[in-house]
Amino acid sequence: MSRFDNIRFILVGTTHPGNIGAAARAMKTMGLSNLHLVEPLHYPSAEATARASGADDVLAKAVVHKDLVSAIEGCNKVFGMSARLRHLPVPVVDPRQAVEQIQQYPDDTNVAILFGREHSGLTNDELDRCQHLINVPANPDYSSLNLAAAVQVLAYEFKMSFDPTIVVGRVGEEREVIEAKDLEHLYQHFEQSLTAIGFLDPQQPKNLMRRLRRLFNRADLDRNEVQILHGILRAAENGRGES
Amino acid sequence: MSRFDNIRFILVGTTHPGNIGAAARAMKTMGLSNLHLVEPLHYPSAEATARASGADDVLAKAVVHKDLVSAIEGCNKVFGMSARLRHLPVPVVDPRQAVEQIQQYPDDTNVAILFGREHSGLTNDELDRCQHLINVPANPDYSSLNLAAAVQVLAYEFKMSFDPTIVVGRVGEEREVIEAKDLEHLYQHFEQSLTAIGFLDPQQPKNLMRRLRRLFNRADLDRNEVQILHGILRAAENGRGES
Repeated sequence: MSRFDNIRFILVGTTHPGNIGAAARAMKTMGLSNLHLVEPLHYPSAEATARASGADDVLAKAVVHKDLVSAIEGCNKVFGMSARLRHLPVPVVDPRQAVEQIQQYPDDTNVAILFGREHSGLTNDELDRCQHLINVPANPDYSSLNLAAAVQVLAYEFKMSFDPTIVVGRVGEEREVIEAKDLEHLYQHFEQSLTAIGFLDPQQPKNLMRRLRRLFNRADLDRNEVQILHGILRAAENGRGES
Repeated sequence: MSRFDNIRFILVGTTHPGNIGAAARAMKTMGLSNLHLVEPLHYPSAEATARASGADDVLAKAVVHKDLVSAIEGCNKVFGMSARLRHLPVPVVDPRQAVEQIQQYPDDTNVAILFGREHSGLTNDELDRCQHLINVPANPDYSSLNLAAAVQVLAYEFKMSFDPTIVVGRVGEEREVIEAKDLEHLYQHFEQSLTAIGFLDPQQPKNLMRRLRRLFNRADLDRNEVQILHGILRAAENGRGES
């Protein structure tokens, strides 16, 4: 059982079924799958399924509730998303702070995150059930994130805090790591070749060689790239010889 | 001129115009407005405008290019979004690391972020123009973020790094701050009232009072709330007196 099984995203009174599908997709990309719906206007819906793309399994197991009380049953901590914050105050945090806080709860803590209606958000009564409010820092002149976009931001923060691994595919296999002495050989070869072709003045080599070292030290070369550079230098020397 | 004017989001070969509109909206919510499009399949489009919602100004000034070379002209640093990473390696960072790096560039550095096609991403040729790749940490079994969702995550990281202020509305005005002595008065009142109603044993007051202190110290009370608690205690004492 994953820690994420205890994280429940609750969409309250969603108007557009497409947003429910897009929210399911956003959750699944980040490894979350515990979706609850309170009084969705149109659901189930072909549009929700279409926008869910490959996340129809999340949609299929989504639980529909008649009211919020039923949706948060069994939850220990309730967070509410709010763009407006014109209500009675409870602590307001940004998504990162919220997830950092959640990460410090014991593993068996059931957490609910409430997402309000597209145009009107959560009602005061719904906000009063939240122990914390989450506000996404936004452009003060245009702060209304699309519902699925807000879900994506929250889900992303969960992923970043709990499991930020980048899946780097075959990159590691393709690159053969080199040793420091390989770089030294390369720099010697540069010095020798650049002198041979008249680009480097052996009386004043320091600055140029230092710049080249800086450049290639930074470039994190692999063995294949070192070999390519040796090849270029050999070709340059030969070209000079033949001219 | 804002630092964000130098941050260019480039959507390459977008298939669905709705995603262009949703991307414009995602950018604007985070204060970004510099949108470029390379060979969009259908654009301009009523669907793009509809999904942009209130961000049609960003859409209206979006620049359409015939090729990527034109779109990145004048850019100093080019980042590419990539979900697959099966190509020749350049440094791969997550969105947070990317934005932290960008934040360290001089203010006049022009930065491009490339977002590839919905199904096939960026081509190898396009990826080879990137100095850095950005990968959103994702569910390895389902890593394909919707295009606008990826734009939202990046834009959110820009906002979080450059200007993470939460707009807290009238919350501050509604809460009158109290002083430490107000809390002491409250705790004295608790002790006195709870003794009067027989809930507190004056011979053993320590633990209960310490717990109450802990609770209300944590609760960050404002003046109105302190008054409410005094009122409740008075009512409790009176109730006891009348019984």
